[in-house]
Amino acid sequence: MNVATLLFEDFETLDVFGPVEILGRIKDDYDVKFYSASGGIVQNHHGIRIATDKLSTIAQAEYILLIPGGPGTRGAIEDQSLVDAVARASEAATYVLTVCTGSALLARTGLLNARRATSNKKAFAWASSYGDNVTWIPKARWTVDGKFYTSSGVSAGMDMTLGFLADRHGVGFARHVAFEMEYHWHEDKESDPFTRDY
Amino acid sequence: MNVATLLFEDFETLDVFGPVEILGRIKDDYDVKFYSASGGIVQNHHGIRIATDKLSTIAQAEYILLIPGGPGTRGAIEDQSLVDAVARASEAATYVLTVCTGSALLARTGLLNARRATSNKKAFAWASSYGDNVTWIPKARWTVDGKFYTSSGVSAGMDMTLGFLADRHGVGFARHVAFEMEYHWHEDKESDPFTRDY
Repeated sequence: MNVATLLFEDFETLDVFGPVEILGRIKDDYDVKFYSASGGIVQNHHGIRIATDKLSTIAQAEYILLIPGGPGTRGAIEDQSLVDAVARASEAATYVLTVCTGSALLARTGLLNARRATSNKKAFAWASSYGDNVTWIPKARWTVDGKFYTSSGVSAGMDMTLGFLADRHGVGFARHVAFEMEYHWHEDKESDPFTRDY
Repeated sequence: MNVATLLFEDFETLDVFGPVEILGRIKDDYDVKFYSASGGIVQNHHGIRIATDKLSTIAQAEYILLIPGGPGTRGAIEDQSLVDAVARASEAATYVLTVCTGSALLARTGLLNARRATSNKKAFAWASSYGDNVTWIPKARWTVDGKFYTSSGVSAGMDMTLGFLADRHGVGFARHVAFEMEYHWHEDKESDPFTRDY
């Protein structure tokens, strides 16, 4: 299955490369590709520059859309053509996985309406202002609602991605992947010590 | 301080971008740059392509050299001109941080001789065959010996980088950075559940 990773200017580094490390290890099942609204080089505040294809060119029958967050989300969410492209790509996706404030961008498309979601805990008040009738969960490492997986901030994307693998391939498989990368997987999506008071 | 990140073909994704996420968050103190032996685009097995400068052009008075591992280490370690460039850059560096089998590459330069080091636990027998009189520690999340920090596999690089920040700026600062990125930092460098029997 293709992993279509959405990039935009000033994406958060680990939001992208944590899940990419995990899914990219399973070469027989997952093929990582990078996309952006207009294609071309996308860069971020850590000096990373990545070549991308245009999001509208995804032609795979089945794919996972990975939507990161980061400082660039605040600009991306105001860009109507990007939001429209994310809406189309998310509707067609088999699964949509968001990390950090990526859930705000997804909520902006309307596809999280009447669904459960979470987001970065530092930016929770802002993120949860998007969407209509979204059940925003302030205490969750990640949430699952149908094909939509949303995680908390930055590092939580790795725990969510392993949770996604557990749902698809069994918890034993996900634990094996975590062990091979010497990662302390926090398996319980309800356990969230990073929740703040709102 | 400049963070000079060494890249070579088929570097491991998280070995690089875990530490880069952490150090890159502290913009006032750390400036991340990417280097390779010959400069130019370096790519890896997850489809990531990064623009780099030539390693010999590092001109900063003080810098951290970050050496990742990954499948490409096995080729890199046989490339004498790369090993020579890593030796020169490591000697001049204020600190050298290795992740995963990056410690084998550093050991190959001779700079870990008579020092303590660790490496990826799956590739430990191979990695620890390099260097002369290196005290290879099979059970350690990371090790510190003078200016040389070496970590275990993949994810361990993040715990080591936070340990490095704790050593330089205090443990409270490192905990704050971990909290902001919603990361469960494993603070004890001696605790290592990923050790295997040799």
